[in-house]
Amino acid sequence: MDHVPDHTTATPGYADTKGAQLKRLRRIEGQVRGLQRMVEEDTYCIDVLTQVSAVTRALQAVSMSLLEEHLRHCVVDAARESDEAGQAKIDEATAAIARLVRS
Amino acid sequence: MDHVPDHTTATPGYADTKGAQLKRLRRIEGQVRGLQRMVEEDTYCIDVLTQVSAVTRALQAVSMSLLEEHLRHCVVDAARESDEAGQAKIDEATAAIARLVRS
Amino acid sequence: MDHVPDHTTATPGYADTKGAQLKRLRRIEGQVRGLQRMVEEDTYCIDVLTQVSAVTRALQAVSMSLLEEHLRHCVVDAARESDEAGQAKIDEATAAIARLVRS
Amino acid sequence: MDHVPDHTTATPGYADTKGAQLKRLRRIEGQVRGLQRMVEEDTYCIDVLTQVSAVTRALQAVSMSLLEEHLRHCVVDAARESDEAGQAKIDEATAAIARLVRS
Repeated sequence: MDHVPDHTTATPGYADTKGAQLKRLRRIEGQVRGLQRMVEEDTYCIDVLTQVSAVTRALQAVSMSLLEEHLRHCVVDAARESDEAGQAKIDEATAAIARLVRS
Repeated sequence: MDHVPDHTTATPGYADTKGAQLKRLRRIEGQVRGLQRMVEEDTYCIDVLTQVSAVTRALQAVSMSLLEEHLRHCVVDAARESDEAGQAKIDEATAAIARLVRS
Repeated sequence: MDHVPDHTTATPGYADTKGAQLKRLRRIEGQVRGLQRMVEEDTYCIDVLTQVSAVTRALQAVSMSLLEEHLRHCVVDAARESDEAGQAKIDEATAAIARLVRS
Repeated sequence: MDHVPDHTTATPGYADTKGAQLKRLRRIEGQVRGLQRMVEEDTYCIDVLTQVSAVTRALQAVSMSLLEEHLRHCVVDAARESDEAGQAKIDEATAAIARLVRS
């Protein structure tokens, strides 16, 4: 039997905050459309850049929230299941954090 | 007379690459909608996080491209106009770069 | 009784890799002294900047390594001890990751 | 004749702030030695991580200061010398900014 749960069908760690995550992503979609309008209207470069930084920070807030829920649920559950499952989840989470730090 | 050009009506630094910037921003809008679908379909946390990092990097590529065009056109033009205009543009660009580095 | 272990006297998560962490930090100290020499010798700005970026990446590698050991030991142990201890460690780790992402 | 000045012998952009840059780098060297002591004394992981983030931010402040001086002097001078020299300096500065943003 496999110690790592099949994550393709499992409840995701963000199940309890799914509505809030979707709301944030819809607001980010609106901000990206706002950026398109700014460029179409020849808005001054620095003003566009300021707004791109705001959208980047909003995306990072989504990342941090998803990561927190993942640690809180998926990693904790795996750590309680077995050493192997826990270590596998922590390797995976560490790789995701490294991508966040570099992006 | 004012040494800093009125940037609200001036041609932006990205005028020559406006089409490419819009194309990138439309692709990013599609990626953000893709993120919403992933969350709606309860995609595994780490797979959502990987995709959020990809969108963040795509936004940073837009920032770097806008910044390069801004330095290449607006800052160079201001530097040739006068010391005051050049320094004002460099103060402004440095603040924008600091926001990029921290976001 | 307190569910959160007294972390001031506990073995740190990086106990097994302490020698490697110290070796990295000594190499980073040498790199920072190298930066001082570059500035003293009036090295070209861009070459100094390239080397500052290298030192920043080396520090981030230390962070990622410490964080991985912390998740692997301290967080896993707390999660197995109790819900409260686990959640407290995850709140704390999430705040540290947020500082890493923004720094 | 070459339009790009020979940057190996030229005065660096940070010439006027050389003392301040060195002072910052010496303080950073002290902070890195402080990190070594923290690890030697088995300081709690999260407290070490917080201090690593502080050193990373101090290095980024050096980067931003060097970059500002580089734009203010080297890039402006090159932009006034010729189109070719200006564009070459901006290509180089943009690449350095991209390394900063990703590090």
